[in-house]
Amino acid sequence: MRICISKFAIIFIICLTFIFPPLTLSLKSAVNVWPKPRLVSWPKPLARFLSANFTINSPYHQHLAPAVTRYLVLVRTEHYHPLITPSVNVSASAPPLQTLSINITDLAAPLQHGVNETYSLSISEVGETAYLIAETPWGAMRGLETFSQLVWGNPSAIPVGLYIWDAPLFAHRGVMLDTSRNYYGVADILRTIEAMSANKVNVFHWHVTDSQSFPLMVPSEPELAAKGSYGLDMIYSPSDVAKIVQFGLEHGVRILPEIDSPGHTGSWAEAYPEIVACANMFWLPGSDWDDRFASEPGTGQLNPLNQKTYKVLENVIRDVSNLFPETFYHGGADEIIPGCWKADPTIQSFLSNGGTLSQLLEKFINSTLPYIISLNRTAVYWEDVLLDDVVKVNSSFLPREHTILQTWNNGSNNTKKIVQAGYQTIVSSSEFYYLDCGHGDFLGNDSLYDPQTTGRDPKDGKSWCDPFKTWQTIYNYDITFGLSEDEARLVLGGEVALWSEQTDPTVLDGRLWPRTSAMAETLWSGNRDEAGRKRSAEATDRLNEWRYRMVSRGVKAEPIQPLWCIRNPGMCNASPFS
Amino acid sequence: MRICISKFAIIFIICLTFIFPPLTLSLKSAVNVWPKPRLVSWPKPLARFLSANFTINSPYHQHLAPAVTRYLVLVRTEHYHPLITPSVNVSASAPPLQTLSINITDLAAPLQHGVNETYSLSISEVGETAYLIAETPWGAMRGLETFSQLVWGNPSAIPVGLYIWDAPLFAHRGVMLDTSRNYYGVADILRTIEAMSANKVNVFHWHVTDSQSFPLMVPSEPELAAKGSYGLDMIYSPSDVAKIVQFGLEHGVRILPEIDSPGHTGSWAEAYPEIVACANMFWLPGSDWDDRFASEPGTGQLNPLNQKTYKVLENVIRDVSNLFPETFYHGGADEIIPGCWKADPTIQSFLSNGGTLSQLLEKFINSTLPYIISLNRTAVYWEDVLLDDVVKVNSSFLPREHTILQTWNNGSNNTKKIVQAGYQTIVSSSEFYYLDCGHGDFLGNDSLYDPQTTGRDPKDGKSWCDPFKTWQTIYNYDITFGLSEDEARLVLGGEVALWSEQTDPTVLDGRLWPRTSAMAETLWSGNRDEAGRKRSAEATDRLNEWRYRMVSRGVKAEPIQPLWCIRNPGMCNASPFS
Repeated sequence: MRICISKFAIIFIICLTFIFPPLTLSLKSAVNVWPKPRLVSWPKPLARFLSANFTINSPYHQHLAPAVTRYLVLVRTEHYHPLITPSVNVSASAPPLQTLSINITDLAAPLQHGVNETYSLSISEVGETAYLIAETPWGAMRGLETFSQLVWGNPSAIPVGLYIWDAPLFAHRGVMLDTSRNYYGVADILRTIEAMSANKVNVFHWHVTDSQSFPLMVPSEPELAAKGSYGLDMIYSPSDVAKIVQFGLEHGVRILPEIDSPGHTGSWAEAYPEIVACANMFWLPGSDWDDRFASEPGTGQLNPLNQKTYKVLENVIRDVSNLFPETFYHGGADEIIPGCWKADPTIQSFLSNGGTLSQLLEKFINSTLPYIISLNRTAVYWEDVLLDDVVKVNSSFLPREHTILQTWNNGSNNTKKIVQAGYQTIVSSSEFYYLDCGHGDFLGNDSLYDPQTTGRDPKDGKSWCDPFKTWQTIYNYDITFGLSEDEARLVLGGEVALWSEQTDPTVLDGRLWPRTSAMAETLWSGNRDEAGRKRSAEATDRLNEWRYRMVSRGVKAEPIQPLWCIRNPGMCNASPFS
Repeated sequence: MRICISKFAIIFIICLTFIFPPLTLSLKSAVNVWPKPRLVSWPKPLARFLSANFTINSPYHQHLAPAVTRYLVLVRTEHYHPLITPSVNVSASAPPLQTLSINITDLAAPLQHGVNETYSLSISEVGETAYLIAETPWGAMRGLETFSQLVWGNPSAIPVGLYIWDAPLFAHRGVMLDTSRNYYGVADILRTIEAMSANKVNVFHWHVTDSQSFPLMVPSEPELAAKGSYGLDMIYSPSDVAKIVQFGLEHGVRILPEIDSPGHTGSWAEAYPEIVACANMFWLPGSDWDDRFASEPGTGQLNPLNQKTYKVLENVIRDVSNLFPETFYHGGADEIIPGCWKADPTIQSFLSNGGTLSQLLEKFINSTLPYIISLNRTAVYWEDVLLDDVVKVNSSFLPREHTILQTWNNGSNNTKKIVQAGYQTIVSSSEFYYLDCGHGDFLGNDSLYDPQTTGRDPKDGKSWCDPFKTWQTIYNYDITFGLSEDEARLVLGGEVALWSEQTDPTVLDGRLWPRTSAMAETLWSGNRDEAGRKRSAEATDRLNEWRYRMVSRGVKAEPIQPLWCIRNPGMCNASPFS
């Protein structure tokens, strides 16, 4: 759902727009916040210094307190030098800013879907104190980030005579990371969460397990990780998870776990071979794609006919619910491959007695979803569970009040199908939001690469979701494209997804950043200016600046242009009309 | 040219093949050298330990000595643990290996094109000493690298009863790095050279300058870098260059400088606006591609009609020759854009008096190439100088004995054109060897990204040389494809090229590695097994292992597959038939 803004708030914004006319910011201004706030008023290009004893006053909140400390250190010590020196008059005579004072309306609001992230920030030309007013501690964290991005130089200066009002367009703004194909250390995940927070991205969708490895230590089922992980040094222990959840709370980032099942579960067979169909088989036994056992190597799907499947899975679901306070539980349910289930003798009997593959999935959903709901969780599944061509369930098995479906195929068309079926949705279109695309296929021994001649078959060696999704592809995507206003309300937000077949910690930052920043802005404040035009030229310059600032903060974001482009704003555009 | 092997050597190899039948190595063996040596004989899977006091004895050579020290430390301390434990019997009773003894035939051979890199390595089952016999110090460095890759575990073990004979198929095996679009620190360049050496890649083609920045401090023309670089902290000083050249010598890597001209010289205008046509203009003034001023932002081409052009350029060429001992000098000469020269008033007069654009380029070449040759340099140019559709020179201006042409367009077709014209060539086909492709276009404000619907125009947002070149695309390319034996002899070798519009130090390693390793092997020993079949399945497993070893050595190479694939050799292939 788009964040609901009360009528009062809308009138308030309209009034502000008259009092503070919207400003078309250029890179030369000192206001280069990413994602762009909803409303910025800064009538005169004035700035002043921060006091050497600058402090932040805040009501006490256990998760906000470390954030306040962190931002205080950052604004005092960052001394970021913009690539373009701001054309702004830093007043030496004005008194330095002494304090940022934080006011919070609802200190008790928990970090969960739909929590109010609204904040406003006022920095006057003369007063000793700037004011950050937020509805919740999580909104205050967003405001602190904005404040930190306003500060630059040495000594630290900040624009004044400035008013910002800000709130997200979409409540769910996420990054999905697959830690099964390749493993990431806890430090990599924490660095990612910190960068997400700096981009006001608030959901870390953790695709923990898959067929390749099972790196999560589940206390009631320790054998799953002991045997199914890549090694004892590549396991997330309960204390690792607690650390990540705590870090998320201190950064306003929800940690949403996904235990993909019944497909994508080959790794479970290391501990429980009896509950996994077609485990450890060559993935493409013939040349016919329809005969495959899995959408990629390796194979394995939980057997819905084996009661032990549910015994193990209930232990996993219960433990995961205990480890993660998040109220969404992602159950996966994508890419059930017929050939895999058909390879299992017990399933063969079931099918030869008139059963169908879809009935198997319905049995699986019906044996697990009620348990997920009983733990006060909303279930998230990939769209396949409803939209797959062959193996899918009737919507009666998926109660709309307890189920969210995440779209990934067929662009905006499948989003439309899901919301027309009445479900809330999270958009992860593989055509726009899959960060792993464009690096070619990873299969070995592939004769597709043999041709030597020019003008090869364009499919040769491309990844299935080619091309690479540039920041501009991501930035320009409107996740509610083609939906009616009512349908659009069912869109909770979006997630970029990084599947890890060809990614691991060595290249993580460059794959995620700054492309995730592109999604961050469109889901926070959109991709259009006040006149409704795509703000891509201005965004290019501002994203360049933000990318360099992220690098200076320790995130190895990839460059989007030559440095020359940043130094010569507009000169690297496709068209001179910005 | 392919490395010439004397008839004697061929007979010798044939004899060896009978004495030591070639071995099809599996990943489980302990012999996973990358690039694969030409001949490996290891009849029995035996290994023994290295002595704790293991040493390397070598005749003294100023550049080899530091390499020997480096490899001694590496083999003593690396203790690499293969991802697959070798199925090999490490004999505890055999005496540990005490010494690697190096013998060199020609200690005085300089590091230059065509130098003999042949070596052989013998490690017996019992003797105290292993033998590395090389023709030159540079061949000894190749053998030392091979030796280091044979060592694994803690305590360090090494396969024994092993004989390797090795020599490259192609003499020129290079990496081109563009340090103008974005800047790289000296440490990044040194790390790259070290990784090249580990892959037996022997030419660092340094595309130092371009339109975006001029980072090289040229002593006779200090203003070029002072004004044309990205900043005083982004300049290569003469001592930086000396350090890089010295590091190259100690790693057997030639440092081949390119000063691209007369195109790609916008940055020269910061110091000398009078010698640069069309500098600092918007690159695409209309909507017609033919009217462009440059192939990408920014603009600027040296004016061949201005005598000062040659005064500046002679200073640059002379200083570069002094800074770089390398006997190849790369002059660029690619992508002369008609619209740029046509925008210059003096050139307009020349053209209106009946002159042609090609005559301008001929004047330029004729005013600079003789000077390059007078400094005992072989000139390298991009193929455009001869093959461009519009602006090109008559071959009489390019003496074949002093000129090498580097191909990049039109796959093997242009390579054929160049060698049929009688020129030696270096192959950098953009369809196979351009490492920057596939990351989308970098232009800002591009309306191509606007469409929201599924099935967008496949051109939208792709980079001009899409798709991404996977390691398999690179590995499968035969650079002499379609050439006769005589024509193939003119192919000196190949270079992967990394243009830096969307790359800088944050993502350098992942862009270069392990894809450059793929080229390294095909140019060293080819991409086929003894039976003439592409060895892609075996190579996939071995490259996985080598990639992890490079990471453990500090090179952030990207992963090519899930770790699961490496642990389950063959299971991630496209076909089960390897």
